Amino acid sequence: MKSEILRLLKESNTYISGQQLCEQFQVSRTAVWKVIDQLKKEGYQIEAVRNKGYRLIDSPDVMSKAEIESLMDTKWAGSNVVYYDEIDSTNNRAKEAGDNKAPQGTLFVADMQVAGKGRRGRVWQSPAGSSIYMTILLYPEISPLKAPQLTLVMAIAVAEGIKEVTGLDTKIKWPNDIVVNGRKICGILTEMSTEIDYINHVVIGAGINVNQDDFPEDIRKTASSLKMELGKQVKRSELIAAIMKSFEKDYEIFVKTEDLSGLQELYNSMLVNLDRDVKVLEPGNEYEAHALGINKTGELIVRTAEGEEKEIYAGEVSVRGVYGYV
Amino acid sequence: MKSEILRLLKESNTYISGQQLCEQFQVSRTAVWKVIDQLKKEGYQIEAVRNKGYRLIDSPDVMSKAEIESLMDTKWAGSNVVYYDEIDSTNNRAKEAGDNKAPQGTLFVADMQVAGKGRRGRVWQSPAGSSIYMTILLYPEISPLKAPQLTLVMAIAVAEGIKEVTGLDTKIKWPNDIVVNGRKICGILTEMSTEIDYINHVVIGAGINVNQDDFPEDIRKTASSLKMELGKQVKRSELIAAIMKSFEKDYEIFVKTEDLSGLQELYNSMLVNLDRDVKVLEPGNEYEAHALGINKTGELIVRTAEGEEKEIYAGEVSVRGVYGYV
Repeated sequence: MKSEILRLLKESNTYISGQQLCEQFQVSRTAVWKVIDQLKKEGYQIEAVRNKGYRLIDSPDVMSKAEIESLMDTKWAGSNVVYYDEIDSTNNRAKEAGDNKAPQGTLFVADMQVAGKGRRGRVWQSPAGSSIYMTILLYPEISPLKAPQLTLVMAIAVAEGIKEVTGLDTKIKWPNDIVVNGRKICGILTEMSTEIDYINHVVIGAGINVNQDDFPEDIRKTASSLKMELGKQVKRSELIAAIMKSFEKDYEIFVKTEDLSGLQELYNSMLVNLDRDVKVLEPGNEYEAHALGINKTGELIVRTAEGEEKEIYAGEVSVRGVYGYV
Repeated sequence: MKSEILRLLKESNTYISGQQLCEQFQVSRTAVWKVIDQLKKEGYQIEAVRNKGYRLIDSPDVMSKAEIESLMDTKWAGSNVVYYDEIDSTNNRAKEAGDNKAPQGTLFVADMQVAGKGRRGRVWQSPAGSSIYMTILLYPEISPLKAPQLTLVMAIAVAEGIKEVTGLDTKIKWPNDIVVNGRKICGILTEMSTEIDYINHVVIGAGINVNQDDFPEDIRKTASSLKMELGKQVKRSELIAAIMKSFEKDYEIFVKTEDLSGLQELYNSMLVNLDRDVKVLEPGNEYEAHALGINKTGELIVRTAEGEEKEIYAGEVSVRGVYGYV
């Protein structure tokens, strides 16, 4: 009921009477009052006027199941939120839920991770109060060979969500980092459990720097936050809901063709590497080339110094010059 | 200590004195006697002769951590056994252990599974007392794209282990069923947890029909057991140890080249589909072709009616005629 009352308050431009809430949820006035009181304690500014009712004046940058769900405008992506103030890693919780067949699109969100994961077992610093750590659980009926493309779908959705909520143009560093002014704002970690030719489940986690004012010395030159770029706070729950709305749309475009052909143009328009020189780092092989954008399966097409076009799969690419570390 | 005493008894052709065991393990006579008594209760026939010591006359078809480990002759594959009289599924336990970074090669064995899994979420009937249900946990440092080939490595190892212990020639139905006289003896289920370009862990489970005398009506025509083929019981723990010895050898050949080039010839010599007509079942496509064997990445090479050679990846193929269901 809390999510629904919050949603009504948010969607209403005027006062909502206690009587109306009682009738809608078939509960007592006391029950309604208790929910309103809880919301106030969580930081919501709610005005209560006799004979008029309740009105939401302002929401804090609060993350909770109720807050996130009240903002969610999707059919399935993130419509079921599992929220933690503190957890080992949202990817781990999503994987466990996948083993237990939790619903498609269930979203795991945490304010803080004590064992946040980057790629290849690296640590993802996950302090409380300023970031988004979220992971969506999916059961795509596609070949495991195609699943890696989903990580690019999430990259698009994060960039779109940030644009929607803040107006900020971010770029994608292939395959799936979100960068702005050459600094990393978001990392994405996709993991899957598969049989040889069958996907048990896929989880896509995103760690987004939102309201940090600074970073530890070792990543200060390569990391940024939305607040540092915009000069103002961003409400994390709004951003989560916006990203989920974009993700749902983009995911449905993806599954129609089971590739990125419907998203390729959009992705390339956001690609920081586009038309730039890149250094291709393959195991035991390093060479320079010119990036031409992704193909419909998400590989990066590059032109080598010899004029040969190559498609790069899941390697690590770094862009030279201009854009800091990217 | 139980595994080690059992191993000494098995390896010795003559009596081992209680005194010798006490000294070797730095324990009291009573402690040794207790272990011997336990083993007897588990069905081992152990002769105890005054002034001579203990001698193992016969081992039953018993499965236990001690029995399996006492027979294991490997460096890492199966050298650490986790045994269950009853469990949901050995693959599930191995996956959980993989999430918790249990050692490479840890082997999960059960006498009975209450939620045994076949491919694509199907049920694998897993009654007690007659089958092997086992899963090995691996952390191969290869691309996730190459991991499916490991399922063929296990198929070879199972066929080799059966040959070693029973003398029976079995065949492999591509990619990974073990068959004999057209009936299925063993199924293999490989599952993995990966990032886009990094393997968290791979688990390979094998369900082997060993001492069944009969099968339920619905699979009677397509299933067989080693006992039904041989006319005599097979000791499951011996078979497990033999398969692990083969697997360790074959796995090390595989990782050297990160493909099946070193095992291709061996695999094809066991391939029931070799030089036979097969029906290729692809999603929305079915055609007949002639199977020519696997290539070095484990794909089945077939020649179509039009004379075109195709490489089939992870589809489902069925062989027509002669060999029953296969």
